Amino acid sequence: MGAKTFTVVGGGPVGTLLAISLARHGYRVGLYEGRPDSRETDIYQGRSINIALSDRGWTSLEKIGIGDEARDQAIPMHHREIHGVDGGLTEIPYGQEGDAIWSVSRGGINQHLLDVADGEPNITTHFQHRLVDIDFATARATFRRAHGDEIIVEADYAFGADGASSKVRRLAHNLPRFSYSQTYMPQSYIELNIPAKPDGSHRLAKNALHIWPRGDFMLIALPNTDGTFTCTLFLNFEGNPSFDALQDGADVQAFFTANFADAMEHLERPVEVFMEKTASPLFLVQVFPWSFNRKVALIGDAAHAIVPFYGQGMNCGFEDCAELHRLIDVHDHDWDRIFPAYENARKPNGDAIAELSKRNFVEMSDLSGDPMFQLRKMIEAKFSQRYPQLWTPLYSMVTFSPEVPYSEALRVGDEQNGVMEKIMALPDIEKDWDEQYVMDRLHDLAEETFGEGQ
Amino acid sequence: MGAKTFTVVGGGPVGTLLAISLARHGYRVGLYEGRPDSRETDIYQGRSINIALSDRGWTSLEKIGIGDEARDQAIPMHHREIHGVDGGLTEIPYGQEGDAIWSVSRGGINQHLLDVADGEPNITTHFQHRLVDIDFATARATFRRAHGDEIIVEADYAFGADGASSKVRRLAHNLPRFSYSQTYMPQSYIELNIPAKPDGSHRLAKNALHIWPRGDFMLIALPNTDGTFTCTLFLNFEGNPSFDALQDGADVQAFFTANFADAMEHLERPVEVFMEKTASPLFLVQVFPWSFNRKVALIGDAAHAIVPFYGQGMNCGFEDCAELHRLIDVHDHDWDRIFPAYENARKPNGDAIAELSKRNFVEMSDLSGDPMFQLRKMIEAKFSQRYPQLWTPLYSMVTFSPEVPYSEALRVGDEQNGVMEKIMALPDIEKDWDEQYVMDRLHDLAEETFGEGQ
Repeated sequence: MGAKTFTVVGGGPVGTLLAISLARHGYRVGLYEGRPDSRETDIYQGRSINIALSDRGWTSLEKIGIGDEARDQAIPMHHREIHGVDGGLTEIPYGQEGDAIWSVSRGGINQHLLDVADGEPNITTHFQHRLVDIDFATARATFRRAHGDEIIVEADYAFGADGASSKVRRLAHNLPRFSYSQTYMPQSYIELNIPAKPDGSHRLAKNALHIWPRGDFMLIALPNTDGTFTCTLFLNFEGNPSFDALQDGADVQAFFTANFADAMEHLERPVEVFMEKTASPLFLVQVFPWSFNRKVALIGDAAHAIVPFYGQGMNCGFEDCAELHRLIDVHDHDWDRIFPAYENARKPNGDAIAELSKRNFVEMSDLSGDPMFQLRKMIEAKFSQRYPQLWTPLYSMVTFSPEVPYSEALRVGDEQNGVMEKIMALPDIEKDWDEQYVMDRLHDLAEETFGEGQ
Repeated sequence: MGAKTFTVVGGGPVGTLLAISLARHGYRVGLYEGRPDSRETDIYQGRSINIALSDRGWTSLEKIGIGDEARDQAIPMHHREIHGVDGGLTEIPYGQEGDAIWSVSRGGINQHLLDVADGEPNITTHFQHRLVDIDFATARATFRRAHGDEIIVEADYAFGADGASSKVRRLAHNLPRFSYSQTYMPQSYIELNIPAKPDGSHRLAKNALHIWPRGDFMLIALPNTDGTFTCTLFLNFEGNPSFDALQDGADVQAFFTANFADAMEHLERPVEVFMEKTASPLFLVQVFPWSFNRKVALIGDAAHAIVPFYGQGMNCGFEDCAELHRLIDVHDHDWDRIFPAYENARKPNGDAIAELSKRNFVEMSDLSGDPMFQLRKMIEAKFSQRYPQLWTPLYSMVTFSPEVPYSEALRVGDEQNGVMEKIMALPDIEKDWDEQYVMDRLHDLAEETFGEGQ
């Protein structure tokens, strides 16, 4: 009997990593991607699209045996750089000394993983194959190729790793007892660009994630290795101000000038780009189950499309792969046990990071410009440094603590909130925040809440 | 200029009531139903399907000018009759003296409303017209008729009143920014029957809703006017016990005998029916928006499919109609204002009754068999009778207080929960519940929480 076979739908970072994991467990894998091979064609049309990768992502790659070559192409961001309306800058570190989140090129990491996959004899890769249909009882998949002909692919099992708008998931929609939710956020977004200086260097501090928090809306910028920044404007779809309300070039100009004066010196044709582009919606998708008939399953954004405000989308998808990688060994290749174990382990974490990401919009766009919020972060950081066993800030649990599941981070974070509300309600906290009695009170409350550890 | 025209998709109770309301406001209405006319064909195949109607439903009918002829065919249920495992009976009143929920025949109320609609010159009714497509920009609808031909119906506006599995809603699924959720409950259900006695009378107490609460599962029975009871068994889809686990006739027989011994004397072929029928799933659907392009809107179960555990589904749909009826006058037929006002007024109430209904499964199937729960109900009832301004029990707010919106009932009910938890935690509550100090303590807590009124 030959090795069992898998069809993986979607050759993005998560699908490719999954294919590598399966191949390294001895399975034969067909990896099918609808678009052309980005290593041969510039499907990004010259645009740099970067995403955040942090410890969960790196750790998951390591667990599957992917070395850290990818880090050479990543830019560490050690702090948030908050741009005030007046152009004033405030640095808020992401964690302790040395902690960083990484700005990586989505295309770059994808190409790196595809190169690794090409080195795996058990993987065959097929570009320009668009999924048309999948049989959830047999894992038989039908793909349409570039010239319009269709092929049928048989396999023992199939995975949908085909992203936030997953076709596999949409086909699953009519299966019995499939719970599904799609939720649109009030915000939409467009991407803008800050070019490199003539000498190729960055026009803003390179090792930072830049935020222009403006309450209801915000602009952010992440550095690319070519000296550019990819910026994203998040703005309500309707209301005032909104993409809907800003229809006139002069109004858009006034909006940018009033809110992002210091960025305006660097942005490439922001008003024209704003006028030309259609804003993309932001949505969450939550589903259950993630597997069907112990034949077909969802992974990554296909299973849990989240909003980008915690920079955890790809990290969570990589973690799905690492958990599956582990479960294949734990359950000794018994997929009747692996599928349910996988979805039961990952679903609560997908839900938790969805919730955390949604909440983080407020933190980024509103609170990060609020002095009391910044004070709270400072107190937490100081306390955590002194009593690391008693307190890891929520952001650090999510971003720098891959050993803490997202669901645990959410729960502990809510309890920390309760404690910090009491601290921030101390009458003279703004004046006394650095006094010993504040640390003592926080210590008592934390001990009471978390005992000897979180 | 002639009167504006409406297409109403779905000729069930809600669609028909909506058509009457629109016609009475001077609009011309085409009412389209996929099934044959139940007044001419027995589409229920001899089965009595009953649903609960309560004050919200009756009040909404009155607001639209429907008299109370329907009450002649309804059976008032004054209390829950709890059947213990040992066959012992406990009565729990639904409210104050005289309060009742009503068991009505779904077919009967539908036929009554269709008769009223037939008397409205502005309504044309079309049976065996299945919706194929609807254009959300123009309200143009395509229907397939009994013989397979298709017709196109133009109108100024359209409503989807086509129930929990609404085709209008499914067609809306791909509209931009449409938030959607469908959630399956762990339970599924089958309907069973208790026949009338040879003399046509009821085999169980007629004016009660009978419940066999068994924790994870339950059987309920509602009276019909023909002496029968329609029973529903709610049981988990999988696990133990479950529809999935009970595959063998002898096991099913043992399950019924162990759990519903006193019902077994009356049920008609329960084991055979259990073996023959496929259990129906229970699901919730929540969406937003409820209206599209100020042209097409959803109403009733199409907008908010809920689970049946509060007996509020049709009541909520009728309330949607009554609110719309009111808003047509308030906004003087300006549908650019009516549609948003309607969805903003009703969405929070649809969400609230969805939540309340989901929670009520536990109350019916588990708590209603719990002596502490019954004690709590007694204390609440006594307190509410003494201080009606300070306390209306949640069940009464939902069922007997149409002036209290569902969303308000949910909020106040949660606060009452907090108060009653403190009362039930009093050390000697089981012994002292009728003592003055308990009423006094409850009075203090209620005053503190609700002030001079809820």
